[in-house]
Amino acid sequence: MASLKAAFVALVTLGAALSSPAPRLAMAQVSPDQLDEKMANDPAPWTVPGKWGPRGNWGRWGEQDKRGMLNFITPEMIVQAAGLVKQGKVYPLGEEMHGDLPRFITPSRFGVQVVIENDGYDRVTQPGQFDPKRNQGAASYTIMHNHVGTHLDTFAHIYRENSLFNNMPPPRPAGTVHGDAASVKFMVARGVLLDVAKYKGMDPLPSNYWITVDDLKNTAKAQNVEIKKGDVLLVRTGWRKMWDQPGADGRADPAHTKYLQPEPGVGPDALSFLNEMEIVAIGADNAAVEWNFPLQPGYTRRAFGGFQGLPMHVDFIWNRGAYIIEILNLDDLAKDQAYEFLFVVAPLLLRGGIGVPVNPIAIR
Amino acid sequence: MASLKAAFVALVTLGAALSSPAPRLAMAQVSPDQLDEKMANDPAPWTVPGKWGPRGNWGRWGEQDKRGMLNFITPEMIVQAAGLVKQGKVYPLGEEMHGDLPRFITPSRFGVQVVIENDGYDRVTQPGQFDPKRNQGAASYTIMHNHVGTHLDTFAHIYRENSLFNNMPPPRPAGTVHGDAASVKFMVARGVLLDVAKYKGMDPLPSNYWITVDDLKNTAKAQNVEIKKGDVLLVRTGWRKMWDQPGADGRADPAHTKYLQPEPGVGPDALSFLNEMEIVAIGADNAAVEWNFPLQPGYTRRAFGGFQGLPMHVDFIWNRGAYIIEILNLDDLAKDQAYEFLFVVAPLLLRGGIGVPVNPIAIR
Amino acid sequence: MASLKAAFVALVTLGAALSSPAPRLAMAQVSPDQLDEKMANDPAPWTVPGKWGPRGNWGRWGEQDKRGMLNFITPEMIVQAAGLVKQGKVYPLGEEMHGDLPRFITPSRFGVQVVIENDGYDRVTQPGQFDPKRNQGAASYTIMHNHVGTHLDTFAHIYRENSLFNNMPPPRPAGTVHGDAASVKFMVARGVLLDVAKYKGMDPLPSNYWITVDDLKNTAKAQNVEIKKGDVLLVRTGWRKMWDQPGADGRADPAHTKYLQPEPGVGPDALSFLNEMEIVAIGADNAAVEWNFPLQPGYTRRAFGGFQGLPMHVDFIWNRGAYIIEILNLDDLAKDQAYEFLFVVAPLLLRGGIGVPVNPIAIR
Amino acid sequence: MASLKAAFVALVTLGAALSSPAPRLAMAQVSPDQLDEKMANDPAPWTVPGKWGPRGNWGRWGEQDKRGMLNFITPEMIVQAAGLVKQGKVYPLGEEMHGDLPRFITPSRFGVQVVIENDGYDRVTQPGQFDPKRNQGAASYTIMHNHVGTHLDTFAHIYRENSLFNNMPPPRPAGTVHGDAASVKFMVARGVLLDVAKYKGMDPLPSNYWITVDDLKNTAKAQNVEIKKGDVLLVRTGWRKMWDQPGADGRADPAHTKYLQPEPGVGPDALSFLNEMEIVAIGADNAAVEWNFPLQPGYTRRAFGGFQGLPMHVDFIWNRGAYIIEILNLDDLAKDQAYEFLFVVAPLLLRGGIGVPVNPIAIR
Repeated sequence: MASLKAAFVALVTLGAALSSPAPRLAMAQVSPDQLDEKMANDPAPWTVPGKWGPRGNWGRWGEQDKRGMLNFITPEMIVQAAGLVKQGKVYPLGEEMHGDLPRFITPSRFGVQVVIENDGYDRVTQPGQFDPKRNQGAASYTIMHNHVGTHLDTFAHIYRENSLFNNMPPPRPAGTVHGDAASVKFMVARGVLLDVAKYKGMDPLPSNYWITVDDLKNTAKAQNVEIKKGDVLLVRTGWRKMWDQPGADGRADPAHTKYLQPEPGVGPDALSFLNEMEIVAIGADNAAVEWNFPLQPGYTRRAFGGFQGLPMHVDFIWNRGAYIIEILNLDDLAKDQAYEFLFVVAPLLLRGGIGVPVNPIAIR
Repeated sequence: MASLKAAFVALVTLGAALSSPAPRLAMAQVSPDQLDEKMANDPAPWTVPGKWGPRGNWGRWGEQDKRGMLNFITPEMIVQAAGLVKQGKVYPLGEEMHGDLPRFITPSRFGVQVVIENDGYDRVTQPGQFDPKRNQGAASYTIMHNHVGTHLDTFAHIYRENSLFNNMPPPRPAGTVHGDAASVKFMVARGVLLDVAKYKGMDPLPSNYWITVDDLKNTAKAQNVEIKKGDVLLVRTGWRKMWDQPGADGRADPAHTKYLQPEPGVGPDALSFLNEMEIVAIGADNAAVEWNFPLQPGYTRRAFGGFQGLPMHVDFIWNRGAYIIEILNLDDLAKDQAYEFLFVVAPLLLRGGIGVPVNPIAIR
Repeated sequence: MASLKAAFVALVTLGAALSSPAPRLAMAQVSPDQLDEKMANDPAPWTVPGKWGPRGNWGRWGEQDKRGMLNFITPEMIVQAAGLVKQGKVYPLGEEMHGDLPRFITPSRFGVQVVIENDGYDRVTQPGQFDPKRNQGAASYTIMHNHVGTHLDTFAHIYRENSLFNNMPPPRPAGTVHGDAASVKFMVARGVLLDVAKYKGMDPLPSNYWITVDDLKNTAKAQNVEIKKGDVLLVRTGWRKMWDQPGADGRADPAHTKYLQPEPGVGPDALSFLNEMEIVAIGADNAAVEWNFPLQPGYTRRAFGGFQGLPMHVDFIWNRGAYIIEILNLDDLAKDQAYEFLFVVAPLLLRGGIGVPVNPIAIR
Repeated sequence: MASLKAAFVALVTLGAALSSPAPRLAMAQVSPDQLDEKMANDPAPWTVPGKWGPRGNWGRWGEQDKRGMLNFITPEMIVQAAGLVKQGKVYPLGEEMHGDLPRFITPSRFGVQVVIENDGYDRVTQPGQFDPKRNQGAASYTIMHNHVGTHLDTFAHIYRENSLFNNMPPPRPAGTVHGDAASVKFMVARGVLLDVAKYKGMDPLPSNYWITVDDLKNTAKAQNVEIKKGDVLLVRTGWRKMWDQPGADGRADPAHTKYLQPEPGVGPDALSFLNEMEIVAIGADNAAVEWNFPLQPGYTRRAFGGFQGLPMHVDFIWNRGAYIIEILNLDDLAKDQAYEFLFVVAPLLLRGGIGVPVNPIAIR
């Protein structure tokens, strides 16, 4: 562990050296494993009885509910969010999808494949001649893992004791009608960008950086934006650009080694705040939003009694019926310092889709 | 042809008999083939020189432009469209996607397949016992034709003389970067629903019904909604429900015979009006938006000198750089008489995707 | 029906005129619908009680058996079949697999798609320069319908009363372990080619030609080859070449209209002979081996009390546990007059594969 | 490196302790990295000029040849191989294909997915009642990486200087007609099993064990079987069973950690012998046949001047036009001490398929 800590310090130092303005932090940063250790005896949120049923938000919107925290957003909140549209500027936050899009299914090459149909015929009669009464057509197929590129995790992605959120049955290869992409229908909300990388003066944040709840609050404050109940929070770590970093030999790195290091992410100390604020969804420009993903080799997580899964995934998805959006492209929003906006996710209504690639839209 | 006309009259009569209130039309309806014949000598819009280049809107936004009519929508128009959000009500207009979703690739069964990953392990140690430190996870793949269910046709779908809109190169199985779904980025606009089925008092409109430009204008008038420049028009034919109609033997019909009849659609007499109004996209709740799809057996189209393709597809996609959205679910909008709204399409940014399934969102 | 008969006579005449040597038949051929009518009162083989269980070969090799007639082939028969290898000549009988391979899932374009992985990197340092310590690699994916090109129908393909052959459960999207390609393991047998097209002097046999049991026997006799118990019979109709026939306008026909006519095939009068001879598998160079596929529009089959399915499929697959191999390439065998050989099918052991594309090998 | 050597010795010792009879070796085994070092100055076979053209077998069968070493097998050799069939016993050597089949694309879950078509209709009118004139049908799709389970590497898999074997062009996403599965057509040969695991008395051979050329020769001698020119050699390492080994916690290991260690394999000292013997193809029950796959972390290969690729892959596939077959199931052959047999590979003729899953058949 000693060597890991050393490496972290080195990285922080490097990050600080590379990043431009006043590095407000670094020295003050407690090491991630100390933060993890500190929470070792905290009870996991999902072990605390819920107000409406056995867990967090189970039963809150009835036993048949499939949309979870999306029910928290009232028509009034939607009207207010639409009121944020003042400049008529639109930001597509989804990554372009192709065979080598950012993903975390290492080192599989199976991202998205678009197969163009071999049309089989060219209506041209002679080379260079065309029949004015005809034209050509083409079509395509797509084969994609549903958790590559910018994507939404649905309730079926994480489950415990053979139940999904709200006591729904687990997914099956056919006939799944709970916890899938089709159940989401849509997400229209107020969106807030928290550019933690900018606030911390490290862009990207260092590998394995634990974003604390104070980092989130202080970033909002520095940005002069208020976090409100029912918001969708988008956290910027700056990690996105790591996908295309060259390898150790300076050449293009098809294995994306740098990206696939333990990423900076939101630590579990933020969970109770996010719960209090009734956050509907959290997204980030990294692979899993949360801290310690992928797990450092040889590391055992200590928070919540040494819980071995991803705590934010379990709390958001299974316990609270909230959503996680991964691998967002937040750079244009950050550049424009666009910190609040109307946020729209229009997922493909994949029946049985456990997660779904999306192209979220921010409008302001 | 006599028998086809007879069948049409019979269908119209039947439609009138089945539909509820005042059937405002029927008797007055000119037969589709007369309308088609009437336009036989009209020049096709794409044979008329364009103002900015060799065709319609070619060159209008520069030689490198890949978004066509989406450039027509100004920030001001977006702000105004967002101003239509007054009730905070959201309508997802995409069909649920599964193996038997509405489509027009007859009689292929290949719609969308969601394959759930065989997780391969159950972290449960004993049946009925669970390890509190662990949880289960699942994921899925999707394999889909890009022109099934609710989908957007992109510029690469229809081309002539080996060129796409704006003189871009035709699609290839790899490396396509023009005219694909990724080039669309997003569509945010004012949306207008024209419920022609309701206006005509036939829901659905009869098989092969030619929706005239007057039908469109009169529907707008009857709905008390104005068609404005830069709008996205959504035309409701009522055809959607035909997908699930039983077969001749009264049993479930896996071949969807009734749906796959020639569908009602917008006739080519509307093209010049749609061009004048700078319509950015047109959508409908049928398979191809336009009239005479699928082509009646044995019928030869006569408009525009007997052009054998789909005229609206060629004019919108190839000539004007406008968009077509097919197989929309417009029933909830129609029920609420929601005739204008903020309209958002957030397509997956499929590089090389010729068309892309979408879940358009209407907000009002 | 009168016009269909007339068309058939015309086709036979045309076939006779086009084909080269002594047209031994034609005039004598009874029309297919007369042959069909003649069998209208015959009991279907699968309605007759079996010797070992409720149906044909059910229970013959035990209740758990998954390989059916393949059990009939003894080690001695395999040694004898290997003894047919005298010239050391090998014939691959599978069609090449690509996006437009012969198939009968009209007019879907989804045959086989091979997607080559975008390697993502070129280890070349400078254009034209190479690093001698490295090399490039590539890989591919395949997406295929399992009943396109040359393929084997497995027991799960045809079932009745919710049971497969030998009372096995029907296939499910996950967990299928009966009646699938993995259960076949291998087929090694004596193979016999019956070149009916050559024998009849019509190559191809006309559309919808009913190959009678006498055609099969007489072809064997004319070829001086004996049909033996446990054989795999390969029937050549000459239909294969129809796939690439141009359309009515003389241009390449992407819809493969001529191929997709009702094909010549083996009539149900052959079933009792094939059963007596314990034929393990039957294959052909057409889409379904048997007569009246695809069904002529408007025609109702009459044999076996008007059974509406494909009788050979039901008898072979469901009743007898025998196999059907479709869309074989038999032209090279025919050219060499290679009428008996060692026949090997080595199917991919797809668990849950209902049918499997194959490349059968004949060796002599 | 010291620790690696220590680990190796430990493993060898463990292997010796676990394996049953006389452990003929162990103590005598030189460590793999010493063997590797010893060959550091040997010229790579593919840098030596060929007899018929610039490289190994380039030009040997003409400039247009696509089948390479398969041309070496004469009809006489095929007749002799068929003469090995004396017992009529058949061995399918392909693994069953499903979502978690053995593969080496860690830790991707994308093996083979068989998607059963949702038939969409049940011809049963009432539950428990059936229509005797009808039956049910089902079909399936397969989506597979072409290098999972038992598979054949084709010429397009490994290339250098933008050329395949015999100076053919590299593969492309569409239109590939060289070096693909379709070009192989078939493989019919004498097959020889070399059960090195048995000979060495370690089953499996230890992780990263270097199978020397003497191991191959001595195994053949011990088995009393002669290696002949034009043979297909199948090398048994015993590694296959590692796929299903439980993880460190004794539970089922979905990551297949033990299998994915550096596997035992044939070292590059065997290449000149395999070339002299004109070996057409080599296969094994491990992931890459050859030694040091996957590469041990931190290890740099030293043979052939520190060549960084897989030397056997380059020599067999690129230099000699020979074939490699991976992840074979050789256990049944080994159990029967079946050391020579007729060997048939009938690959799907995938146009553009770089590699192809196969079910090779041994008959004796």
